[in-house]
Amino acid sequence: MPDSIMASMGGLRSRLSVFLAAWVAVRYFYSRRAVLYVPGDDTRKLNKALSLDADCIVMDCEDGVASNRKEEARVTIRRWLDEGRTSTSTSEWSVRVNSVENALSGHMSGCQKINLIMYIESARAVLNLPHICRKIEQLSSTAPFKPAALVFGSDDLCASLGVTRSDDGTEILYARQKLVLVAKAFHLQAIDMVHINFQACASVQHSGQIVDLIPDLDGLRKQCEAGARMGYTGKQVIHPGQIPIVQQAFMPAPAIVEWAEGLIAAFQEHQKIGKNM
Amino acid sequence: MPDSIMASMGGLRSRLSVFLAAWVAVRYFYSRRAVLYVPGDDTRKLNKALSLDADCIVMDCEDGVASNRKEEARVTIRRWLDEGRTSTSTSEWSVRVNSVENALSGHMSGCQKINLIMYIESARAVLNLPHICRKIEQLSSTAPFKPAALVFGSDDLCASLGVTRSDDGTEILYARQKLVLVAKAFHLQAIDMVHINFQACASVQHSGQIVDLIPDLDGLRKQCEAGARMGYTGKQVIHPGQIPIVQQAFMPAPAIVEWAEGLIAAFQEHQKIGKNM
Amino acid sequence: MPDSIMASMGGLRSRLSVFLAAWVAVRYFYSRRAVLYVPGDDTRKLNKALSLDADCIVMDCEDGVASNRKEEARVTIRRWLDEGRTSTSTSEWSVRVNSVENALSGHMSGCQKINLIMYIESARAVLNLPHICRKIEQLSSTAPFKPAALVFGSDDLCASLGVTRSDDGTEILYARQKLVLVAKAFHLQAIDMVHINFQACASVQHSGQIVDLIPDLDGLRKQCEAGARMGYTGKQVIHPGQIPIVQQAFMPAPAIVEWAEGLIAAFQEHQKIGKNM
Repeated sequence: MPDSIMASMGGLRSRLSVFLAAWVAVRYFYSRRAVLYVPGDDTRKLNKALSLDADCIVMDCEDGVASNRKEEARVTIRRWLDEGRTSTSTSEWSVRVNSVENALSGHMSGCQKINLIMYIESARAVLNLPHICRKIEQLSSTAPFKPAALVFGSDDLCASLGVTRSDDGTEILYARQKLVLVAKAFHLQAIDMVHINFQACASVQHSGQIVDLIPDLDGLRKQCEAGARMGYTGKQVIHPGQIPIVQQAFMPAPAIVEWAEGLIAAFQEHQKIGKNM
Repeated sequence: MPDSIMASMGGLRSRLSVFLAAWVAVRYFYSRRAVLYVPGDDTRKLNKALSLDADCIVMDCEDGVASNRKEEARVTIRRWLDEGRTSTSTSEWSVRVNSVENALSGHMSGCQKINLIMYIESARAVLNLPHICRKIEQLSSTAPFKPAALVFGSDDLCASLGVTRSDDGTEILYARQKLVLVAKAFHLQAIDMVHINFQACASVQHSGQIVDLIPDLDGLRKQCEAGARMGYTGKQVIHPGQIPIVQQAFMPAPAIVEWAEGLIAAFQEHQKIGKNM
Repeated sequence: MPDSIMASMGGLRSRLSVFLAAWVAVRYFYSRRAVLYVPGDDTRKLNKALSLDADCIVMDCEDGVASNRKEEARVTIRRWLDEGRTSTSTSEWSVRVNSVENALSGHMSGCQKINLIMYIESARAVLNLPHICRKIEQLSSTAPFKPAALVFGSDDLCASLGVTRSDDGTEILYARQKLVLVAKAFHLQAIDMVHINFQACASVQHSGQIVDLIPDLDGLRKQCEAGARMGYTGKQVIHPGQIPIVQQAFMPAPAIVEWAEGLIAAFQEHQKIGKNM
């Protein structure tokens, strides 16, 4: 049983359709600080994800799976869920489906409400974002999903726009902030872009020196903090080593919690004595 | 008699309703460089505002007044206006009313056109901004108000978006620039956010050293200049000490005036000799 | 025969109308890296443009021509085209027409499809941009034009917004990035703003020292690169000396071409062995 369905939203004509049937969603609210992708056709990586502390684990049928492995991914995920493999995990388990337009997705039937996480990853989707959210909100009153979050699919968006992104992402600031604003206007979570920078790292193994790629954690931290300041509540993750940094960045800082508690106390005090702040 | 009504604009369903009756607005154009808030229930501060040189003084019934002091504020402002207290002031005197949604506002009747200044302070309001302006423009053809300005309510907006704002406000650049653009498209003034930073300052009084909070004027100046460069024509002010800085920043610089006059002269000259610039 | 028509797009009510009749457009795709303006009433400059290597040359009837020279410009361009003067040039030759609203444009009749390049240069046009593109797309199914590109008319836009632009253009980032996004959503090219900075330069002529104005090429290069990173595919040019810098900036860098070719090869390889990237 997955907790959420993730689907890319294109133009207004995109219809939602998913291939996994008869699930019942049991939780509606999830914190989604670190959203980790796992290829849906890779049993070893799915097993490993069980031991990871990501808030949301995405069993991917889309970009993370080669075209000729899509069927394998669907069968694997189906079996994985039917066998209740995720039942001991505290993470949210989500399925990312393929677009209806390329006929790779199937149909969802007979299930109760499931969380819907929407990918925004093209110029057209950013342009139509308010319409998409309005339409999904309407559909959700009768359809078996509940809109939960928007995901900023920045790399596909950059390709769609012809953008060459710099480290601070100034080139896509318009789209990144529009997404947060529309998300909040529709009471949705906003999940920020993937940090894709890795650094070469020499690791010594018994057979000699090997060069590994490890996540650029300093760059990741800065990008997390910038996103959190803009109002994003979580971030996509493609390497387990990114999870702790991301989770920390999307926790409210102790000073902020203290400040908020102080503010509430002061407000109540001022109300009592009839003087505004 | 107030010169303007200030009201927060939410979703498209927000209706405009104000509680002060039977006023006649006499002036339609106001320069609104420094827009100062004064709690509507505080007679001492209202009196002090009479001697201040703010372009626009806001007698506040909203955030500046505690819930249990709203009625006091309404009565005070009503009396204050009926007694003609503002008649010697060169400032614009405005009333900021509460939202219709929380039933704290009253009804306006029988008055001639009054300036309407609209607060934009939520994700939903920024999203719907063009629709709000279009609707208000339509309504104003029959209703007793004239749309005059949009106010960027940045702190409530930050709360609505979950934004932690840095000094230069990069996190809300999308909303801040969208507001200017929509304002100018509808021939409205755009009034920039409040600068809320204060600095601790040791002031020596006869009984010993006291720590006061004074406005951070350097930070204020920078924020003013950034807003003015974006096309804002004024700024909200919460401390009399902020007024001179704000007024200066929203005056065209002498060099700009000179340049503009030179441009006009050159244009006329070129037109005369049949050569474009 | 011009290859394109350039027209300023205002509010939704702007109608498109051009004055030059009976042309047949032969090419539909043009690279438009450097888009050079030439006053339509200046035969000397039109002649000079024949020898320049700009991607697109704009025979201007609009801002570049004084009000009392409009008719002269129209006659000159008409004759210029009828005489086939541009037939040996490899550039695209385009005509920039005046707005319908000020009754300076004429009517286009009996021609086959011609490329339409749209100027976006007011708050209202940026606000209505998606509607404008949608409407033009609809009209183009029956009307004799094919929407080809949007031009960011930044200086008129700054005047419309009351913006004082700094070197990096932060003040108009919202509009500049919205334009790219809408362009790409409608499969249009996006042509960036003019770089208007010039530097005083002492040039020694036989009669002594003369001060010339030459383009600030360093500033130009930076602005080109920033625009290219945002997804712009070309830039407006007002001085022949700006052409090489602009053309270079809007070419994909060798490293990018190499990277793209490598990506394609790797993708094909991964598809072959059934593993995604």
